[in-house]
Amino acid sequence: MTDTTIKTAAMLAIGDELLSGRTKDKNIGHLAEVLTLSGIDLKEVRIVGDEEDEIVAALNALRTRYTYVFTSGGIGPTHDDITADAVSKAFGVPCLHDGEAMRLLGEMYARRNMEFTEARQRMARMPEGSRHIPNPVSVAPGFVIGNVHVMAGVPQVFQAMLDSVVATLPAGARVLSRSIPCPFGEGDIGTLLGAVQKAHPQTSIGSYPHFDGKRFSTELVVRARDGVALEAAAQAIVAMVETLAAERESARTRDLGTGELA
Amino acid sequence: MTDTTIKTAAMLAIGDELLSGRTKDKNIGHLAEVLTLSGIDLKEVRIVGDEEDEIVAALNALRTRYTYVFTSGGIGPTHDDITADAVSKAFGVPCLHDGEAMRLLGEMYARRNMEFTEARQRMARMPEGSRHIPNPVSVAPGFVIGNVHVMAGVPQVFQAMLDSVVATLPAGARVLSRSIPCPFGEGDIGTLLGAVQKAHPQTSIGSYPHFDGKRFSTELVVRARDGVALEAAAQAIVAMVETLAAERESARTRDLGTGELA
Repeated sequence: MTDTTIKTAAMLAIGDELLSGRTKDKNIGHLAEVLTLSGIDLKEVRIVGDEEDEIVAALNALRTRYTYVFTSGGIGPTHDDITADAVSKAFGVPCLHDGEAMRLLGEMYARRNMEFTEARQRMARMPEGSRHIPNPVSVAPGFVIGNVHVMAGVPQVFQAMLDSVVATLPAGARVLSRSIPCPFGEGDIGTLLGAVQKAHPQTSIGSYPHFDGKRFSTELVVRARDGVALEAAAQAIVAMVETLAAERESARTRDLGTGELA
Repeated sequence: MTDTTIKTAAMLAIGDELLSGRTKDKNIGHLAEVLTLSGIDLKEVRIVGDEEDEIVAALNALRTRYTYVFTSGGIGPTHDDITADAVSKAFGVPCLHDGEAMRLLGEMYARRNMEFTEARQRMARMPEGSRHIPNPVSVAPGFVIGNVHVMAGVPQVFQAMLDSVVATLPAGARVLSRSIPCPFGEGDIGTLLGAVQKAHPQTSIGSYPHFDGKRFSTELVVRARDGVALEAAAQAIVAMVETLAAERESARTRDLGTGELA
């Protein structure tokens, strides 16, 4: 079922390693793509380190402002994995060993003949009242509390968790888009394109320059939830590109003419 | 000259395309690496879209809190390039066509026989009182106002601008690090490692799991500004790994012994 109200989202990526440059984040771009396909607008991303106060403050700022919050990182077994504690603190509830998570993890380590250490048991901790997010890759679950979805930082696990989360969210009204190739650089089209954007306020028009080593061209992308508004803006852009091309061709012919006379 | 006070930084990446998933950010990880090498602690990153109020709010939150702020994106020639306006608004100063930037850009377009259009002239706009950040790739300068460094979003240009910015900042006290390979997974070492961290509060110890398809191992990284504290924590970790390895070996031998008796 499609929900026609607009859903917004923020992401909070957690981990010192993202801020030291040791690890390059791969989850932000993936989340952005998946949410766009689901009709949910990602509005803001924050990255903070493994510091409880920072995580709590960022989480409280984001969860009160957007429909959904998605976090990555900090739910492993070591001392720097403090996301479950920070999320509990943000919601003002205790962080407890979850019975079902203890059972799932205990069974897995028993199957593997590995000890279910105190450190490994940390991965079963979550804020009281959370629901699980299943982890088909390495068992230790993520969790949902309120509008906050807490997932692992390892990209394969993050992606698997996100797949099951997204399946449970009502799809929003999808943003439609049209992409129009343009043989001119941004400096040639900027003013005209700004006028088209102004005349079509229901749409969002982006321009993405490309340089092939010899000359600039541009990909123009119109986005809108309303198909009629999208089509009107797209036609205005196509007309703009054709007019510019005709002007260039006429200038070129004129120059050639002058050349012959010279 | 090395400044011994600790310098902090935040990054603000600007652009709808980062939030829609159309473009995968490449600047955050690069900035993180460069700042780490310069002894500047990157503490927070935010990504916002091309919306003036969002940019102004994020910038004012970050610039009052950290020693430096670095932005990427939104300084091109099209209508969605609004970073110069937003930064001006955040600082409460007018956004003007800078004379020197107009000259640099005007000369470049004249050399290329290209028209210096109104759209291209937008790239010369910056908050009154800004200093240039040179752009050796495509001429249009970035700018510095207060503690805020405004750079392009295109990674080649961002990187070139950052190189010249970093050269002007006083180097902070470098964070030293030692990396210790560990043949055990996080679940095996988590509790012991937490105790080592507690005993060495001047250091920051991170653990980075690796799975080779058969078994988990871990890379343990200690970071500290003080070399003596670093060495003490590193030795405690090496001792921890050796003790665990000896215990495993002794358990293995015992199991083999039991096997022979059975």
